[in-house]
Amino acid sequence: MAPQYAPSLRARVAPLLFALQIGFIVIFAFYTEIDSKNVHVTNFSHFYSDFQDVNVMVILGFGFLCTFLVRYGFSASAFNLLVAVMATQWALILNGIESWYYSGKVRLDLKSLVVAEICAASALVSIGAVLGKTNPVQLVLISLLEVSGFVLNQQILSIFIKVKPLNSIMMLHIFGTFFGLMLTWTLYRKGSEYQYEKEKFDRKMGLFSMLGTLFLWMFWPSFNSILVENKIRAVCSTYLALAVSAVTAAALSVLSSPKGKLNPIHLQSCILAGGVAVGVSMSVVHQPWEAMTIGFTAAIVSTIGFRYLKSHMQLAFQCHETCAVLSIHGLPGLLGWLVHLLIQIIDCDDYTMATRFAVFHISTLLFTIATSLSMGIITGLIIMWNCWRPPQDKKCFDDQAFWEFPHLIVHK
Amino acid sequence: MAPQYAPSLRARVAPLLFALQIGFIVIFAFYTEIDSKNVHVTNFSHFYSDFQDVNVMVILGFGFLCTFLVRYGFSASAFNLLVAVMATQWALILNGIESWYYSGKVRLDLKSLVVAEICAASALVSIGAVLGKTNPVQLVLISLLEVSGFVLNQQILSIFIKVKPLNSIMMLHIFGTFFGLMLTWTLYRKGSEYQYEKEKFDRKMGLFSMLGTLFLWMFWPSFNSILVENKIRAVCSTYLALAVSAVTAAALSVLSSPKGKLNPIHLQSCILAGGVAVGVSMSVVHQPWEAMTIGFTAAIVSTIGFRYLKSHMQLAFQCHETCAVLSIHGLPGLLGWLVHLLIQIIDCDDYTMATRFAVFHISTLLFTIATSLSMGIITGLIIMWNCWRPPQDKKCFDDQAFWEFPHLIVHK
Amino acid sequence: MAPQYAPSLRARVAPLLFALQIGFIVIFAFYTEIDSKNVHVTNFSHFYSDFQDVNVMVILGFGFLCTFLVRYGFSASAFNLLVAVMATQWALILNGIESWYYSGKVRLDLKSLVVAEICAASALVSIGAVLGKTNPVQLVLISLLEVSGFVLNQQILSIFIKVKPLNSIMMLHIFGTFFGLMLTWTLYRKGSEYQYEKEKFDRKMGLFSMLGTLFLWMFWPSFNSILVENKIRAVCSTYLALAVSAVTAAALSVLSSPKGKLNPIHLQSCILAGGVAVGVSMSVVHQPWEAMTIGFTAAIVSTIGFRYLKSHMQLAFQCHETCAVLSIHGLPGLLGWLVHLLIQIIDCDDYTMATRFAVFHISTLLFTIATSLSMGIITGLIIMWNCWRPPQDKKCFDDQAFWEFPHLIVHK
Repeated sequence: MAPQYAPSLRARVAPLLFALQIGFIVIFAFYTEIDSKNVHVTNFSHFYSDFQDVNVMVILGFGFLCTFLVRYGFSASAFNLLVAVMATQWALILNGIESWYYSGKVRLDLKSLVVAEICAASALVSIGAVLGKTNPVQLVLISLLEVSGFVLNQQILSIFIKVKPLNSIMMLHIFGTFFGLMLTWTLYRKGSEYQYEKEKFDRKMGLFSMLGTLFLWMFWPSFNSILVENKIRAVCSTYLALAVSAVTAAALSVLSSPKGKLNPIHLQSCILAGGVAVGVSMSVVHQPWEAMTIGFTAAIVSTIGFRYLKSHMQLAFQCHETCAVLSIHGLPGLLGWLVHLLIQIIDCDDYTMATRFAVFHISTLLFTIATSLSMGIITGLIIMWNCWRPPQDKKCFDDQAFWEFPHLIVHK
Repeated sequence: MAPQYAPSLRARVAPLLFALQIGFIVIFAFYTEIDSKNVHVTNFSHFYSDFQDVNVMVILGFGFLCTFLVRYGFSASAFNLLVAVMATQWALILNGIESWYYSGKVRLDLKSLVVAEICAASALVSIGAVLGKTNPVQLVLISLLEVSGFVLNQQILSIFIKVKPLNSIMMLHIFGTFFGLMLTWTLYRKGSEYQYEKEKFDRKMGLFSMLGTLFLWMFWPSFNSILVENKIRAVCSTYLALAVSAVTAAALSVLSSPKGKLNPIHLQSCILAGGVAVGVSMSVVHQPWEAMTIGFTAAIVSTIGFRYLKSHMQLAFQCHETCAVLSIHGLPGLLGWLVHLLIQIIDCDDYTMATRFAVFHISTLLFTIATSLSMGIITGLIIMWNCWRPPQDKKCFDDQAFWEFPHLIVHK
Repeated sequence: MAPQYAPSLRARVAPLLFALQIGFIVIFAFYTEIDSKNVHVTNFSHFYSDFQDVNVMVILGFGFLCTFLVRYGFSASAFNLLVAVMATQWALILNGIESWYYSGKVRLDLKSLVVAEICAASALVSIGAVLGKTNPVQLVLISLLEVSGFVLNQQILSIFIKVKPLNSIMMLHIFGTFFGLMLTWTLYRKGSEYQYEKEKFDRKMGLFSMLGTLFLWMFWPSFNSILVENKIRAVCSTYLALAVSAVTAAALSVLSSPKGKLNPIHLQSCILAGGVAVGVSMSVVHQPWEAMTIGFTAAIVSTIGFRYLKSHMQLAFQCHETCAVLSIHGLPGLLGWLVHLLIQIIDCDDYTMATRFAVFHISTLLFTIATSLSMGIITGLIIMWNCWRPPQDKKCFDDQAFWEFPHLIVHK
């Protein structure tokens, strides 16, 4: 109970955050302005509710989803907030470069805020893979590099092969996952399969995590409908896919358990799979049954991935990921991509068109994965530098490495 | 600590859920389509916020309201989600039968989703009575039968005595309560008055439950205003009724306690009574003071019901209900019905009209109660069949019967 | 464990609440009506989402923010609800006096509900200073007197020196703080520096508190944009200020800690400072960088105030405040006022105009502070009367003084 102290981050966190934040303020001072000319009430309240819903998902949903780690609740929720606001500010700047190039100013409005928050969400996905094994300095650096990579990927896809923003932004699940996997592979610590005790959860922390999940589940229809023209279709499809995912994940969780019991982690993660998969294939899903079948398949893929893949990844590839982002975001995202391809090909009357679309769609995926893998490795190499003072093995998954609790009551 | 094991549900839960879910997908594939022709932005964001609010109430509000059971938090929140999504899908199908009959297709849009969720809420009310004493298989069957009964009741009322949808759908509180009471009466277990220990709650679980209550409290104005023409009146009335309920429940809780203390359960349940009562009588409440008086009376009825009726129901009628749905939904619902009758009679100038309305209104209630009682008994008889493997007495109100906790930390 | 019992509040709480509530109903019956003539759908959904967001902040945000006290969770959340609904009803009446004077009726609509909730928020700020050291009777009285003072201050400012409602209502942070400080100074108990143990928090309560904070953080843009014409500017500015505050508070928390660790209380309180400061200076903030700089400075002032001022206030001025309202609302509010003054002066071309504005702005502040200080002392003198049966020193910060837990489980 009186182990080697965690390294002090005073000389790391404070200067880095101050420098970045003051830098952002300076950039915003010279290059941005609030675009409030189109002040129409209807327009405002329309975008504002989108903004609010995404905000709730990013800050509350992702933040509390990871509180299941029994001794890491404060870090999970607070570092999530920190990373989200840094990534959003950075994404606002990066997304505005084009408009800055043409008019000398980056215009901020509600839509650019929403898009920036979605970019921040891709960083939060990546961070799910290394949570508990990194310190806030590393997390902030990761998020900035991830967002840079994600925006770069989007720009290149849009300029060179004319991928629509809706499709390229929904690749966030795939980009975030592979980035995170490379990261955690680079940062692999020997013996991390033994740090088991602190990765457990208890009943109350499980309920906080359930709360985060439910917020993601409830607001996912907003997330998927933001950039879509036909919003009613997007909302209904996403809701149906999520509903089917919840049922399927529960059924499969019981079926895959020798004692026929439910696994709380499945019910907290895999019920979201339908939302991810439908989001990625949104532009071609027209019928309710398509959305429901996608939700069904996504939940199966996700639950099986969770049950069998997580430990294999760790043993075979030395890839330990805290929040199982591969099963939650990666596999359903790939499934959504595949469904998009299949439906589009079926809908094509023309053989040439179908081939052309297939080539286009496959190259989009390959390029995204290539970018995310390479950016992930580069980021991992930067982050593993000892000067960032990562927490010792003993202090992983523990709030005590980063928080002072002068007022913490000692139970009995 | 090593008791007889709970029966494995592997051969029950998984086949049932898979069969139902695949069945739903097939039905949706042949008979439904998303109605996205009226895609008008204003219209969309208007209905979408209704949908979101009801969604939050159904998934989060009801889900966390029941987490007060100290060892049943996971089950309460997750089974609530499962039941809600199954009931919503089933209600979408049932509510669309008429449109299917005329045009061969069930059209889904945001309004049909909202109405389906309200139907699902009536199932959640019923389930509050038997929570902890049933397994997920039973809960899913109950919810499907309850929704069938509720929709049937609504259709018959609308076809034969021309009850407006607004009024018949708000009978959900009354229908759900009596259905649940019959259910728990049929399923009564000898000696269930001794299973006391696990029905207790602790401080933290109490706060999770408070969270669920507050979400219901905050979004109840949305719930009551959905089908109403004059939404401003509905929102203001409901808010005022809820505010008065909160004050009255607190005052009465102190007054009825020998030591002059507050009871946390009163403050978690009875503060909602005003919302229920005003919802049922919404179409005739015009003045703020009417709504406030309804809230005042409803809180008194609900608190007194809670303090004195719950134990009597158990001893005298062998009717043990986990969440006191009679006090929360039943009595305030009946009060709302009575207020509707009184105000409508007072507002009638004509004696004949008043009598006619009274007969109409009373027969609506009697028919609803008769349907719910008979459907409740039938459902109870189906559910009590041993093949569903209900949890043993010892395993009631305990997550361990249904959940595997391989990663659960053991405190000290 | 068997100490002197807390005094029974049966003869205090119940009569007071019943009397006030029945009184309110009578007043509402004679003087109010619901103004539902302007029933336009767009208009409704626009105001309704404002109402919902403020409702969430007042009921959930403020309620759970104070649950960090380890044994005071139920009281913090439930008394907050009680106070909020009483204060809202009272504010509805007081705000309607003018319209009553001219037309004999107080018209209720969604806007008047929103404004009343904001007035209630000012009472909740004050109550943060004395929470845990007062009983519900005292809290309700405080809230009614505080709201009276706040509305009076607003009316006088608006009639005599023509302060715009937007500016006078945003003084709520300053008014509430100084009112609360005077209150807690008047009610100072000798030896309250030793009641340390129960003011501590534990991990789970800390997460509930984090939840409340995040809800305030997420919905603050709604709070600041309600009365503003240019809503997009208000939302973007508030979001940016809050984002910068979060980063700055984290950096400064680490910097000011000898071990280089984060303080959970800083991350729960000081991240809101930017929202407060921008709210007070909203009408003159035009550029993103202005909002960000305000957020930066506000977080610094707030964190330093928290770290060094709280204990000084207690030792030097015998002013013990539970929730550090001075650092959260007071100092950032004053900063916002100062920024408003500076920007307005800089924007004035004319020297005379600038002086005139400065005099006007300074006298607004001085008058507000004078009113709040005097009303605070008067309220404190009324409240300290022994007939209200305040909790004994031993029973402060303890749910057991007010709640019966017949079903509370005893852990091990």
